[in-house]
Amino acid sequence: MAGGTVEFAQRYGPWAVVVGASAGIGAAAADEAARRGLNVLTVARRASLLEESASRLRAAHGVAVQTLAVDLVDPGAVDAIVAATSELEIGTLIYNAAAEPRGYFLEVPLAAHLDNITVNCTVPTVLCHHFGRAMAARGRGAIALVSSMGALQGGKVFASYFAAKAYEWILAEGLWAELAEAGVDAVAYVVGATRTENYKGQIDGSSDLGTSETADADDPDDPDDLDMARRRLRHPSDPDDVGRHLFDVLGRGPTEFSHPDDERQAAAVLQLSRRQAVAHMSDLTTGIRRT
Amino acid sequence: MAGGTVEFAQRYGPWAVVVGASAGIGAAAADEAARRGLNVLTVARRASLLEESASRLRAAHGVAVQTLAVDLVDPGAVDAIVAATSELEIGTLIYNAAAEPRGYFLEVPLAAHLDNITVNCTVPTVLCHHFGRAMAARGRGAIALVSSMGALQGGKVFASYFAAKAYEWILAEGLWAELAEAGVDAVAYVVGATRTENYKGQIDGSSDLGTSETADADDPDDPDDLDMARRRLRHPSDPDDVGRHLFDVLGRGPTEFSHPDDERQAAAVLQLSRRQAVAHMSDLTTGIRRT
Repeated sequence: MAGGTVEFAQRYGPWAVVVGASAGIGAAAADEAARRGLNVLTVARRASLLEESASRLRAAHGVAVQTLAVDLVDPGAVDAIVAATSELEIGTLIYNAAAEPRGYFLEVPLAAHLDNITVNCTVPTVLCHHFGRAMAARGRGAIALVSSMGALQGGKVFASYFAAKAYEWILAEGLWAELAEAGVDAVAYVVGATRTENYKGQIDGSSDLGTSETADADDPDDPDDLDMARRRLRHPSDPDDVGRHLFDVLGRGPTEFSHPDDERQAAAVLQLSRRQAVAHMSDLTTGIRRT
Repeated sequence: MAGGTVEFAQRYGPWAVVVGASAGIGAAAADEAARRGLNVLTVARRASLLEESASRLRAAHGVAVQTLAVDLVDPGAVDAIVAATSELEIGTLIYNAAAEPRGYFLEVPLAAHLDNITVNCTVPTVLCHHFGRAMAARGRGAIALVSSMGALQGGKVFASYFAAKAYEWILAEGLWAELAEAGVDAVAYVVGATRTENYKGQIDGSSDLGTSETADADDPDDPDDLDMARRRLRHPSDPDDVGRHLFDVLGRGPTEFSHPDDERQAAAVLQLSRRQAVAHMSDLTTGIRRT
């Protein structure tokens, strides 16, 4: 193990919890955590995917890996995570889960909007409170909440999802400020287009999405920052890169982006009038919806 | 009744629901709704305040006023609102309620953070879904979610509150885009410092706050937009103005501000690095906390 790895594990280990770890960005984050010498508890719905990945991580990196198959919308989900970690010293929490209602707000069943709040607001809040207290008591650790470019403005088709991702974004920023006083890092990790499991033209790298695709004939070399979003949708990041990069920016909050183009686009979006920002995002999301 | 009032009531009436209406901005909004010829259902915890206000509104404006005393964190709160409005045609929903945990995130009891999610995320989501569907079916109406300048960035002391206000902000923006297609107006109403009931140096006009006050010796004529926040804390808006102004901007979403200074400050904040934005807000909020 390189010196840097030992230091990393001393600061952020010995255990990392990665929630939403069965595929895509979360699986890549679990892999990177193990590569950097952390033991990992992976949490997601699909036990088989978690077990496969765990065997691979143990063999490749020689760390301990535990898995917990749980659906985060289940009322007992948080208790299950707390119980599974009761004997583990959790130095890092990566929260990458996302329930994602897709469709016009009024047409999506209310239950899906409530699941969105549970998975993207309630559960991360509880886990930050639970693990954050132990980290603050130890004076070290890290919390990363995975947000989305959708959090920067409202938009059609994903109205409640973007809202919940804004909750995570702003919560992580507040935690960054407060937890720094206790020696704990927090970061909002804002993710742009990422070629995840079911990715076919998505705003970010959320798992379990549909299979639509944007139809767009813009010039891919157009220098306009606002067209960057369209280009990124056609040229999404590799989830392995996004999951790996998260560990490079763990100590660089309050907000870090999955790709330099996303950071540039975010700066451009936040300078627009809100009407322009929402209209621009809605152009993208209705394109996703139509196809 | 002036012609403008009749048109207003035809577009946004016959009934308005104002949630969080017992004092401050919500009470002022209820008053303005009645002044503009809407019947009003006022919802808040304190029955006596609601009744006093209802008598006043009936006498002053000749409209029908009903009241519902309910605590929004109660599991039956939404059902009570739905039941109370089952015979009413709700043309306008003003959501001004706010649970507001104050203190460092890890020191605030988890239950307070969960109440914050209930009041600022779950309940407005359910009410938007419920009343929004009826409005869209009629092809008219308005929804206003009252957010806060705190939603623009994370900050110490109010980490989960600002996050939940960001949820409301971004949700309302998405609703603005979608509901416009159905002839319904939605707006995020972003509120800066307002001298509400317990106001003594608060980021926005939330009710039921503590009684701290910022101690600040900045030059009140400093032209720097970022010092505007401090000046606004010392010179908060009158809640009557803020509640009244909401009705001027009901059709001007996606995002409107309670005061021109807030709009200017928001533009300045969104051009900062996120680190600067969070640090700036945290300076304000720790000032509030200390005193």
